[in-house]
Amino acid sequence: MHPLDEAIDLKASAPHEFMGATHPAYANMIGPFGGTTSAQLLQSAMLHPERLGEPVALTVNFAAPVADGEIRFVARPVRTNRSTQHWIIEAHQAEGVVATATAVFAVRRETWSNVEAVMPANVPAPEAVPRMPVKGMPAWPQRYDMRFVEGAFPAAFDEQEQAHSRSTLWMRDEPERSLDFASLAALSDSFFPRIYIRRRRRALIGTVSLTTYFHADSALLAQVGTRHVLGVAKALNYRHGYFDQSGQLWSPEGQLLASTHQLVYFKD
Amino acid sequence: MHPLDEAIDLKASAPHEFMGATHPAYANMIGPFGGTTSAQLLQSAMLHPERLGEPVALTVNFAAPVADGEIRFVARPVRTNRSTQHWIIEAHQAEGVVATATAVFAVRRETWSNVEAVMPANVPAPEAVPRMPVKGMPAWPQRYDMRFVEGAFPAAFDEQEQAHSRSTLWMRDEPERSLDFASLAALSDSFFPRIYIRRRRRALIGTVSLTTYFHADSALLAQVGTRHVLGVAKALNYRHGYFDQSGQLWSPEGQLLASTHQLVYFKD
Repeated sequence: MHPLDEAIDLKASAPHEFMGATHPAYANMIGPFGGTTSAQLLQSAMLHPERLGEPVALTVNFAAPVADGEIRFVARPVRTNRSTQHWIIEAHQAEGVVATATAVFAVRRETWSNVEAVMPANVPAPEAVPRMPVKGMPAWPQRYDMRFVEGAFPAAFDEQEQAHSRSTLWMRDEPERSLDFASLAALSDSFFPRIYIRRRRRALIGTVSLTTYFHADSALLAQVGTRHVLGVAKALNYRHGYFDQSGQLWSPEGQLLASTHQLVYFKD
Repeated sequence: MHPLDEAIDLKASAPHEFMGATHPAYANMIGPFGGTTSAQLLQSAMLHPERLGEPVALTVNFAAPVADGEIRFVARPVRTNRSTQHWIIEAHQAEGVVATATAVFAVRRETWSNVEAVMPANVPAPEAVPRMPVKGMPAWPQRYDMRFVEGAFPAAFDEQEQAHSRSTLWMRDEPERSLDFASLAALSDSFFPRIYIRRRRRALIGTVSLTTYFHADSALLAQVGTRHVLGVAKALNYRHGYFDQSGQLWSPEGQLLASTHQLVYFKD
């Protein structure tokens, strides 16, 4: 079983409640990788017997450090319409709420479609780009195959401030796993904090809010399969302890699978 | 009293509960302007006796059409830390939940700060740009002074598809009102749906999820005062009934006051 499937293998424990746990394969320096927590929050709605359609929007607020161990997810469909469904989801541990989420699910129809954002051009194929070395890193980056075309995680914190924080990289689960909503939600949180790329300087950081819009439906995700997706991320503004960054996840064929935004606390 | 102040004049009615109502000055074609509903949801946390600090992130999910009349807001601080506070907020009407929100509030500290996003250059001053005519429009656009430099709301739906959906405009409340978090939250939802700019074609639309990151604190908002702010918005991707758009709100001096993102349902 793939470690991500183990991590999102939640067990129904009461109406609207699901039990899960942090997974050592996705450990961060302290506590779990937030992307895995996001995937678990989403999965609690995916597994709910009243679920309608597929996710189109997910916002996760990281309220407190998640401790290693059990997590109780409470997923409530607060409004179900003909083709949309609205969720409030909470993650509880012994000492209280550690994360909240809202999600919108929908039954989609075919319409006029168009990609207005611009995928980076002239990007070499994944096979032509070396994988980021993960030796010495926490567990979670070892669960990803990341191949940086631009804006790699700095090899040294040499305090050489860069002109921008943009990264472009090929990314997939490691070991390989077919893309689905859970892995796309997790990948959306896998962009390293932009302040590290920009300042090449240590900082205490923590994502406080993460929003992902899923443009792909399950059929498009299945087409991507186990191949790499192209990730692009950049910061917008750093001010008084918080910065925001925006990212896009592209299929190899140039479909925008997801756009994702987050607000990050930092202490310099 | 300014109509926005009337609209956000909520009355505490029970622990965590506040009563408000839609305001005719912010009516849309059917029901209220979503930006006003966002401002009310935020205001219920602002008015809460346990509130800590100022908003840094707000996500509003529009779950169902809001009917003209009373709205009951339930604002719960689900986690209060030393310098951050996490909220779940619901808007109820007779027939159920019509909107949900999550918010993050924080006490900020001064840090290294930097604007990495690029403010449009060579934009003429607001006085040099004509105000958008609002005659015949619903009430809410009449409550804004919008001066389009680029990407105006189409004068006619001539079905001439445009190369992109970008808009650049000066905007402020009408009548004038000093900028605060409520008005910034409302302004963040005032960008017309990008599909109208892009396709110049009628479509049924409705925002399902709106996220705003507040980079400004109250001191910076006070510096802007009643002056225009520069808004920029563009779409990223339209697919199978949903598209997303991102916007920025800039102070005249080039501070990024807020970045905002939304996912919009459309039927063509």
